Amino acid sequence: MQQIKTAFTERFEIDHPIMLAPMDKVSGGRLAAAVTRAGGLGVIGGGYGDEQWLRDAMAQAGNHPVGIGFITWSVQQQPLLIDLALSTSPVMLMVSFGDATDLVERAHRANVACCWQVHRLEQARQAIEAGADVIVVQGQEAGGHGMDRGLISLLPAVRDLAGPSQILLAAGGIADGRGLAAALMLGADGIMMGTRFWASVEADGLDSAKHQLLATRGDQTIRTKVFDIARNTAWPTHFTGRVASNAFSDQWHGNLDQLKANASAQQQRYRESDDEDYRTRVLIAGEATDMIHSIEPAAVIVESIACEAAALLNGANRFCVD
Amino acid sequence: MQQIKTAFTERFEIDHPIMLAPMDKVSGGRLAAAVTRAGGLGVIGGGYGDEQWLRDAMAQAGNHPVGIGFITWSVQQQPLLIDLALSTSPVMLMVSFGDATDLVERAHRANVACCWQVHRLEQARQAIEAGADVIVVQGQEAGGHGMDRGLISLLPAVRDLAGPSQILLAAGGIADGRGLAAALMLGADGIMMGTRFWASVEADGLDSAKHQLLATRGDQTIRTKVFDIARNTAWPTHFTGRVASNAFSDQWHGNLDQLKANASAQQQRYRESDDEDYRTRVLIAGEATDMIHSIEPAAVIVESIACEAAALLNGANRFCVD
Repeated sequence: MQQIKTAFTERFEIDHPIMLAPMDKVSGGRLAAAVTRAGGLGVIGGGYGDEQWLRDAMAQAGNHPVGIGFITWSVQQQPLLIDLALSTSPVMLMVSFGDATDLVERAHRANVACCWQVHRLEQARQAIEAGADVIVVQGQEAGGHGMDRGLISLLPAVRDLAGPSQILLAAGGIADGRGLAAALMLGADGIMMGTRFWASVEADGLDSAKHQLLATRGDQTIRTKVFDIARNTAWPTHFTGRVASNAFSDQWHGNLDQLKANASAQQQRYRESDDEDYRTRVLIAGEATDMIHSIEPAAVIVESIACEAAALLNGANRFCVD
Repeated sequence: MQQIKTAFTERFEIDHPIMLAPMDKVSGGRLAAAVTRAGGLGVIGGGYGDEQWLRDAMAQAGNHPVGIGFITWSVQQQPLLIDLALSTSPVMLMVSFGDATDLVERAHRANVACCWQVHRLEQARQAIEAGADVIVVQGQEAGGHGMDRGLISLLPAVRDLAGPSQILLAAGGIADGRGLAAALMLGADGIMMGTRFWASVEADGLDSAKHQLLATRGDQTIRTKVFDIARNTAWPTHFTGRVASNAFSDQWHGNLDQLKANASAQQQRYRESDDEDYRTRVLIAGEATDMIHSIEPAAVIVESIACEAAALLNGANRFCVD
């Protein structure tokens, strides 16, 4: 089988330039280990920071080399979790959503690589200055929290800013080999995927949610603050979350002021709804759901994407004539 | 020089798979002719539909084969303009923003190819069913009017829906050869560019506006309804316009209800502002402005992008190892 080699695969000694997004409580030890075992780079989704969940996920990953990811602004309030993560010598500490300069320093003091996800060019400048080993450039197509810039323009702009030797990964809207091949043409050294791995056998989460994801089209996803308010999370205002729109978001997405005015009643309504009531409950989904048609083992996902991308890259000269 | 050959270059017998976006009153006869002369496909920006402007632009394009583009919902109210455009046997009639099934039929009756720009997967379905010869898939990164989906996920989804023989062009966020090479990997047969050609010598428009565009970073652009209200245009609500944010949009972007309540006063303020008062006046700009550093002749733009993309595609197998 042909393999794709980049500065990212070289640095982390992996077979495929494909990283698992640290999806909060979806990217558990089982999924992270499966992605690593398949030749990619698995990352545990430490998210907001729940110590017991994190300990369980790390135990589940066992001896497989994986990274551990956190939400920057949240984990900065729980510095002991960073110590816990770094004490296991993970492949990388990944951080996202906020100025993580201090976390890069802490990772480096522990001889751990630090990966910083950015959403705008100005954030990339910060990550470069802080000395992040890997920068993930995430476009607004991505599921979950993010910002407004599109990957196809942000990625080459970050490459121009960062210079040729910075390791960059592309994220948002990618679910197949076409996306990986395109990302390399735009200047990335690999990709990070969330939504595609959410629809995997090993992802933690309800089966009904995974099937709901398969049934969701990209056109039906929106970026919204509705579920941050409904779940009473403390997200900084400039981050929105891409989710499948549903009856709850249809009611409030255009009426955020009213939702805020009714916050406690709506938070109660949300809390008391059934876990599988997808008309109310949030279903995180990126636009790439259009390209996802089945729930597969992570190894099948990693290998088929690497294989499709290698074929595209190998055959790309077919477009050229003298 | 190496050239890129696709179904698009074959069908329209052009040298490079690069089309000019029909930017309203910016893509005049001079720019459209220059793009065609350089081996791309120039398209006149008929926009909302101004008969005298259109006659002048067509005269300026002279004998160069060019297309003519319109805003669907606007030109449908002025059917005589379609007759005028078709009477000159343009290379294509291009339409965007709305159901253009009737316009495809009219173009075909006149033996003119029809190109339909879409912004969501559901719109692509409509364009395919109507028999559009070319479908432009435009991501939210684009300057000017559009919708919310990102190019990197929308394009392969449209390819999967349309099948392998439909000619597809990628638009939004592309300004260099990296974007063209990526678009081909994602399944496109070529690209359409606006913002990159807006910063060209031949684009109609004020020099100060072009320099303002060069100074605008992608992070500073926003999708907004502010200037549609300020200019009192009748855009359907689901379309927003990507522009450089400025003092005027800073004031109103988060306060659209208040702007609507003060519409006539603010429309007067806007109207009476100086053409070059960019704190008030709209400057249309796509996210790709990050990759644009100089105002160049259209021929230099076309050739350098084709050349950069050919080199990337030819060398893409460097990523692959056995």
